[in-house]
Amino acid sequence: MRLTEQREGEIALPFDPGADLSESVCFIGRVKSPWQTRAECPKNMAAARETGQTAAVEIDAPYRQGLIGLQGVSHIILLSWFDRSQRNLIVQKPRHATEPKGVFALRSPVRPNPIGLHVSVVTALDVEAGRIEIDAIDLLDGTPIIDVKPYFASIDAFPGAVRSST
Amino acid sequence: MRLTEQREGEIALPFDPGADLSESVCFIGRVKSPWQTRAECPKNMAAARETGQTAAVEIDAPYRQGLIGLQGVSHIILLSWFDRSQRNLIVQKPRHATEPKGVFALRSPVRPNPIGLHVSVVTALDVEAGRIEIDAIDLLDGTPIIDVKPYFASIDAFPGAVRSST
Repeated sequence: MRLTEQREGEIALPFDPGADLSESVCFIGRVKSPWQTRAECPKNMAAARETGQTAAVEIDAPYRQGLIGLQGVSHIILLSWFDRSQRNLIVQKPRHATEPKGVFALRSPVRPNPIGLHVSVVTALDVEAGRIEIDAIDLLDGTPIIDVKPYFASIDAFPGAVRSST
Repeated sequence: MRLTEQREGEIALPFDPGADLSESVCFIGRVKSPWQTRAECPKNMAAARETGQTAAVEIDAPYRQGLIGLQGVSHIILLSWFDRSQRNLIVQKPRHATEPKGVFALRSPVRPNPIGLHVSVVTALDVEAGRIEIDAIDLLDGTPIIDVKPYFASIDAFPGAVRSST
């Protein structure tokens, strides 16, 4: 069930971005996390790390062979599917922000395609059991996972990336 | 039209990961790139940068307000949708590899959810025209884009990430 909410200054699309069924996603597994409610779930990966709580990804049986060769990879990119987030708010006002911002300038779970991106450290891997232990996650327990990718510093790490406040 | 191919040592799923239409993706725009054929398209972002060729993302009209506030962000994460890639190869043998590997240990466009992840430098932004100029891209001209996210070094940059060859 997707939750619906709209704050002052926010702008909603006049249609449902999830209504066109021509291209679909499949769930390859689920997150196992300590977070049962939105109130306790860390708002980003930095906050998740600060809790010191670990987590895991459980890959469904048909997809487990896809983990072969992931041994030796220190960091992974997880793509999650925010199945409880509305998809139509194109301009949003985060609680901490003074001005509304476009969804593509935010990492909000509310987006046309409700996909989350999380870089985690792999602490253990069991290919046969389909289990990846990770250092931290900012996702509710049971959130669907739609992709796992190896993180490559050569193309993914830009420590000098900046955002000037506007 | 999705292309189908299977090399020796590769393993296909016994079902189509795109067949369950309960969760769908929408296209928010398209890539404008110099690459018209697979043969000329760079295989990764490092190779794309080496060409010196720039590119752009064109966001469709309904989604353009989502770019508000992206000014001042130096790097973005683009999520693309490989609409011409098959989705069922769970173990793959890249041309350069000696051993087959699981899809989740590869950045191959062939995956259960055919989503590509690309970190690009923003060189110009026109919110009203829905146009983001970027330094490079490893995508065919016209490939659909499904998300744009601001890149935050604090949670996305791990320059020390490694992969030991197995």
